[in-house]
This record gives sequence, C-alpha cells and structure tokens, in this order.
Amino acid sequence: MQTPRLTNIPTLAELQGIHRAIQPLIHRTPVLTCKSIDKIAGAALYFKCENFQKVGAFKMRGAASASLSLSEEDKKNGIATHSSGNHAQAVALSAKLLGIPAYIVMPKNAPSIKRTATLGYGAKVITSGNTIQDRERTLERVVAQTKATFIHPYDNYNVIAGQASCAKELHEDTPDLDVVMSPVGGGGLMSGTALITHYLHPNCEIYGAEPERVNDAYRSFLSGKVEGNDRIDTIADGLRTTLSHKTLEIIRNYVKGIITVSEAEIVAAMRLIWERMKIIVEPSCAVTLAAILKDKEQFAGKKIGLILTGGNVDVEQLPF
Amino acid sequence: MQTPRLTNIPTLAELQGIHRAIQPLIHRTPVLTCKSIDKIAGAALYFKCENFQKVGAFKMRGAASASLSLSEEDKKNGIATHSSGNHAQAVALSAKLLGIPAYIVMPKNAPSIKRTATLGYGAKVITSGNTIQDRERTLERVVAQTKATFIHPYDNYNVIAGQASCAKELHEDTPDLDVVMSPVGGGGLMSGTALITHYLHPNCEIYGAEPERVNDAYRSFLSGKVEGNDRIDTIADGLRTTLSHKTLEIIRNYVKGIITVSEAEIVAAMRLIWERMKIIVEPSCAVTLAAILKDKEQFAGKKIGLILTGGNVDVEQLPF
Repeated sequence: MQTPRLTNIPTLAELQGIHRAIQPLIHRTPVLTCKSIDKIAGAALYFKCENFQKVGAFKMRGAASASLSLSEEDKKNGIATHSSGNHAQAVALSAKLLGIPAYIVMPKNAPSIKRTATLGYGAKVITSGNTIQDRERTLERVVAQTKATFIHPYDNYNVIAGQASCAKELHEDTPDLDVVMSPVGGGGLMSGTALITHYLHPNCEIYGAEPERVNDAYRSFLSGKVEGNDRIDTIADGLRTTLSHKTLEIIRNYVKGIITVSEAEIVAAMRLIWERMKIIVEPSCAVTLAAILKDKEQFAGKKIGLILTGGNVDVEQLPF
Repeated sequence: MQTPRLTNIPTLAELQGIHRAIQPLIHRTPVLTCKSIDKIAGAALYFKCENFQKVGAFKMRGAASASLSLSEEDKKNGIATHSSGNHAQAVALSAKLLGIPAYIVMPKNAPSIKRTATLGYGAKVITSGNTIQDRERTLERVVAQTKATFIHPYDNYNVIAGQASCAKELHEDTPDLDVVMSPVGGGGLMSGTALITHYLHPNCEIYGAEPERVNDAYRSFLSGKVEGNDRIDTIADGLRTTLSHKTLEIIRNYVKGIITVSEAEIVAAMRLIWERMKIIVEPSCAVTLAAILKDKEQFAGKKIGLILTGGNVDVEQLPF
C-alpha cells in the first residue's frame, strides 16, 4: 500500500484516505471524561488519550503516515530522522511494522532509556553531537550513505495528515464539540487538528496552547512569520520546537487563538490529570487543561475536546 | 430499592441481583491489555481497572452494595464506618448518592487529603485516636448516638457480594480466562472474586497475592485460622489488614493458592504498570503482576485476569 506524497495542504479526501491507510499501524485511543475535573473547569471536557497510543504518543500517527507514502523502491532504503524524543520511537516502530530499515540520529545527551527503547524497535541508532547543527549534519551524512528517506517530525504534509487522524477520531467519538484544543510545539498536531476540524466541523472553535516560556507559536500567529525562542527551559519538553512555514500557514488560517500558560499552571494541570483521572500524561499534555483553567469564564459550559499528546515521562523526575 | 441483607455465603442469584442493583452507583470499568507486559510475562494478561472506579477504588462496589441493603427506616439514620483509606470515601459517596447521612471515624494521623476528600462527599468526619481500639470505641459511640448502620470494610456478606461484581464484569468482558488473580488484604475482594468465579467458571484457577511482610492470608490459608501480622510495614498499604472468618471460609473453599511477593517485587511491578500502561495504580495493585513475574513458568501461555484495585496514591511519595 502506498499513499500519495502530499505537496500541498491536504484535502479532506486525502486526510480520510490517510486515516484509513494508517489504521493497521495505530491504536484507536479512547476518549475519557472526568466529572471532578469538569466541575473544577465548569465545562464538559473530552480527553483524547494519545498517551495510550503506540510508542506512548500521537507521533506514531504522523510517522506511520509518512512511511506509507514511500514507493516500494524507497521503502527498501528505509527511513531516517533525528530526534531524542517520541518521534524517534515512532519512526523506529513504523519501520519495524513495515519491515524496512530505520536510522535514528540521537544526540550524545539523549536519555539512555530513549536510546534503549529505539534500539528495542530494531532501529539503527547513530550518535551525534548535541547541537541542532550537529544532529542535522549527521543526519545528512546518514541519508547520503543509505539513501533513506528523511521524515521530518512536522514540516511534512504527510506527517500533518497523519496527526489529523487524532482529532478526526475525537470528533467521531464525541459529536458536537464547541471547542477543540491541542498543544503547539512544531505545530504538526495543531495544524492537523485545525485542518480536519475546519473540514468536518467548521463551527467548532480551534485553540492552541503553549508554555509562556516558549511562546513562539503565539508570536508567530500574531506576526505571520516563524518566530524563534530565546529560552527553552520549559517542563513541557515536547513543546520546545518552533513552527515551520507549512504548519504556521495552516494555523494562521484555521486556529482562533493560541493561549499561553505558566510553568506552575502546567504542573498544576498535569497533577490534576494524574490525581483525578489516574492516567500518566507528559507535562506537554497539560497545557490545554491549564489554558481552560486559566480563563474559565471564556469556556464556561462548553463541550471541549482536548488532545492528551503522550505519556512518556521519567517517573524518577516528576515535578510534584 | 432494597437488596436482601445477606447472612450466609451469597448464592449466584444473590450476586447477580446485587450487581444489577449497584450498577447505577458504580462505573463499569474497562479491561486493559498491554503487549509489552505480556511479552515480559510470557502470558496474556487482562487488567480490570478499578483505579478508574468511583472514588478511585473497587471499595465503591462493596459500600454501594451494603448501603442498598438498608431498610428505608435504617437509611434515614445513615451509615458509618472507621477508615482512613478508600473504604471511607466509598461509604461517604454511597451515602451521598443515596441521599443519606454518613459518619466516618478517622484517626488523627489520617492524611489530610483523605479527610478533605471524605468531607467533600458530604460525610461527617469524626476524629479518633490512632489505635484500632480508639477507632472502634469512637465508632461505637457514634453508632449509639446516631443509630447509623456500621458498614464493615469486608466482614460483611453484602460487601463481599458487591466486590464480586468486579470479577463478574471481568469474566463477562474477557471470556475463557485460565486464571483469575486478586490482591488479598481483608479478603473482601478476594472472596467475592473467588465466589463468582467458582459459580460461573469452575475451571478457572483462582489465586490471591499478598506482600511477604503481611502474609497473614497465606498463613491463614494453611492453618485454617485467622492469623495476625507481626509487622505491617509494607508499601502495599491497602493490604495490611487481616482476614475475617467470613472471608477466610470462602477463600479456603475456592482459592487455589496465595502467592507472596517482596517489597522490591511490588515496586518493580508497579513501575512496569505505570511506565508501560500509562495508568496510575496503587502499590497494592501490583502484587498480582509481581506474583506472575516471580514464577513465569507456572503461568506461561495462560490467559490471566488481574484486578487492579485502585489508583489513590500520593504523587509526592512515590517509591521510584
């Protein structure tokens, strides 16, 4: 099976086709509710639980989607990326499920647990220096040697289309949402969420949430240019990256606003999810609930879908 | 609605009737699976997730069942118990849902978070001294004053019948289990699990698991008498109590064996559930998985149902 290699903003039909194509490679994750958090928020919240996704994060959707767009010839050479996080494992597992090689460039300072997990999926792990330049240079060398296809974690329409499947399932399982919300890091999940919601539920309001400390998406949304971050010291380690041109364009077109939250608000919201819902979620997940709790009046009485992006945390390094 | 006050070991018809009666007061919790833990265990494990139950623990089933056995006259006077744990909250919430008073005796040294949660359900909390004698004496006084009905956490056939509903749902959702396993504290869940499994699936093997440090159930099972514990310093704080005559009789009749596990084995199994399943479970939950991992050969290739009893942990006091 080969899906089309997308070179423009995906159409509804393309998003639907890609969702069908990746289904054998992903879990359909549950949508959970929690009365006590609803009471605190004064709204009806529906949590799409990608912490239960394969590899523990929504990244599996985009990696699976991009992998399926390779020709049979390209598949033989495999896929490659540089990442020290969930995307690395998602690319590694996609390759394993498709029976093709994976090459993952990881910086020297990546946690050994992530390296072990990636090796566990059968990927070849190549160690690079720690700077983004080191990582990119090493990746270029690997790609030149192996002819593997580079899968960017978000600046790729097939990846964006894969991530859109998450909100598509959320809408299917939870009709008539007034609002849908996603964390914003590089914007792959945010732009996929925005696109599918725009196509299927044009009256549903779409918001992003991100840490104040890495508010590049907020500033990019206002300026119309891809802005950088002066600091990246947020606990929400999945949200430290900046947008790309592809994700910014979609976000500017379809997202209503980006809400920023403090580190303390993120930790408090994360703790609420752990304690009341009894599920393990990453700090990055908690920005959306934090955004709602920060401005309860704006969301009072609404039916709101929130994407919980992943559950890969180091239980020895908790912020509580 | 009033269910019969049971004075003998419940029959199948009684267990079925009580399950129907308590359904409006409880959640039907999901049964989850995890491929990576199955791989480690070499068996197919089905986790019945009572950490997602109301009040975060299976205790809600027994408390709801006992509450429904009160006459309309008795209901007016309310229900009472002494507990610093999940049973307190279960009695408080059952009372709230039925619109009747609840009186909970809690020792001075109970965590303030438990007191707050119990008050949050509208119960009247009465503080006692810390010894079991102090607690029982205070409870007697409260019962004499209020004429409330005392709900024992496990030495009560209506409570046992309520706890049986948990394994009943597990069998309904997961046919043809070879083995079912439950933690053993006071034996309410264990005896309910054993009874319903015996009635519905007589060929399914029934095991209990408990910490080595509080192995009273293991010793009681062998001796046929209710044995005590010399020490109660286990991390599995839900399993520190001893059996009662009612629970021991059922356990001796229908349970195949009690497996004991070390503190380190409990923590390792708990961590595996947290990290691989992304759900929050109490240490008490982890004894069954620890028992399987301790003797993989005995359980190799079997289809095993495990009850995860609850998810109320203090995230500031984790053993990792």
